[in-house]
Amino acid sequence: MAVKTLQVNKDILSANDLLADNLRARFDQSKVFVMNIMSSPGAGKTSIILRLIESLSDKFKIGVIEGDIASDVDAQKVQKTKVEVVQINTDGACHLDANMISSAAESLGLKGKDLLIIENVGNLVCPAEFRLGENVKVMILSIPEGHDKPLKYPLMFTESKALILNKMDLLPFTDFNVEELRKTVTAMNPSIRIFPVSAKTGEGIDNLAGWLADQIQTTK
Amino acid sequence: MAVKTLQVNKDILSANDLLADNLRARFDQSKVFVMNIMSSPGAGKTSIILRLIESLSDKFKIGVIEGDIASDVDAQKVQKTKVEVVQINTDGACHLDANMISSAAESLGLKGKDLLIIENVGNLVCPAEFRLGENVKVMILSIPEGHDKPLKYPLMFTESKALILNKMDLLPFTDFNVEELRKTVTAMNPSIRIFPVSAKTGEGIDNLAGWLADQIQTTK
Repeated sequence: MAVKTLQVNKDILSANDLLADNLRARFDQSKVFVMNIMSSPGAGKTSIILRLIESLSDKFKIGVIEGDIASDVDAQKVQKTKVEVVQINTDGACHLDANMISSAAESLGLKGKDLLIIENVGNLVCPAEFRLGENVKVMILSIPEGHDKPLKYPLMFTESKALILNKMDLLPFTDFNVEELRKTVTAMNPSIRIFPVSAKTGEGIDNLAGWLADQIQTTK
Repeated sequence: MAVKTLQVNKDILSANDLLADNLRARFDQSKVFVMNIMSSPGAGKTSIILRLIESLSDKFKIGVIEGDIASDVDAQKVQKTKVEVVQINTDGACHLDANMISSAAESLGLKGKDLLIIENVGNLVCPAEFRLGENVKVMILSIPEGHDKPLKYPLMFTESKALILNKMDLLPFTDFNVEELRKTVTAMNPSIRIFPVSAKTGEGIDNLAGWLADQIQTTK
């Protein structure tokens, strides 16, 4: 008889997956498109979200969930716009999980919303492992981080449907090689969409917002 | 009778602490000073290490342990210098732990070394929780990441004895406020040393290397 083996890590992930599947069903029912944005600390998640709100809030009803270990600095910035925002403080935890999103979505309310943006904890590692019931995972890599990051943090780059290349305004002052990055990433994830942008100058934001608007339409 | 309570998280951390204490005794016995460098991905850990090797390898025998989830890109860069290097691939894990360092130190050899530099996985969250038997934890914050990071990732900033402010060459192109950063960080960690540097131009490296040389002398 085969030995019974309990795969603890797999079981823990499955509990989150189960909750994520439930969440996804709730999101689908409410016809809300959900985007989970992940990146290193300081790559520009909040600035990109503010730009997307600027571009899309006339056409779509948007809600934002802000994930941070501590503080509500980012949520305060979003609150100055016309969209609703809920802050999650993870109290030390390095990623958001489906259970946290379930509570936050409840508090925010899904009714009538077209787009829910989740800003994950700034971390290029752990958040990639936890599904949040999202329609798409999107990651940001900022130019000063360097073009060698896909080799070192492969899961984030293979899990993401789109890669936002932020801080293009700093490109002339670094040795970042955009073509090299594009080659490495597409070898790992051939269908990934890459959007070079600058949240500071607004460069490339129209392109990104256009893609997102098309994605939102698929849930209608 | 009081209910018996098993505090699982605390016990897991304690196992690492126990190994870290053993490691620390081995490092002390070998009179090797150990620095654990932590930061977000792309803040410049490897570039700073290469600058420190340049400044200090005439005076001190140095060894380097490179921690990455995947790849040996960084270890290859260090190997081009005259110091010995060992690569740890964590295979998905978001931080180094004392057990990994124990094996790596064995493989590297401590005898005759004055300074062991450990480059942790690029992550501003998880590595701060795991002691590696180091004499000092040092963190890097790079200018493009923004001056609001201490509020969002408090543990890293309170655990570190020194904060290296890297990519000062990019300061004119960002809205980073060095005084604001200094105020926030010293309120959380009054004794922290702050070193503004640029690994690219070499600015401030002498200062940092001088401080590290003084630290190494304390173990002799």
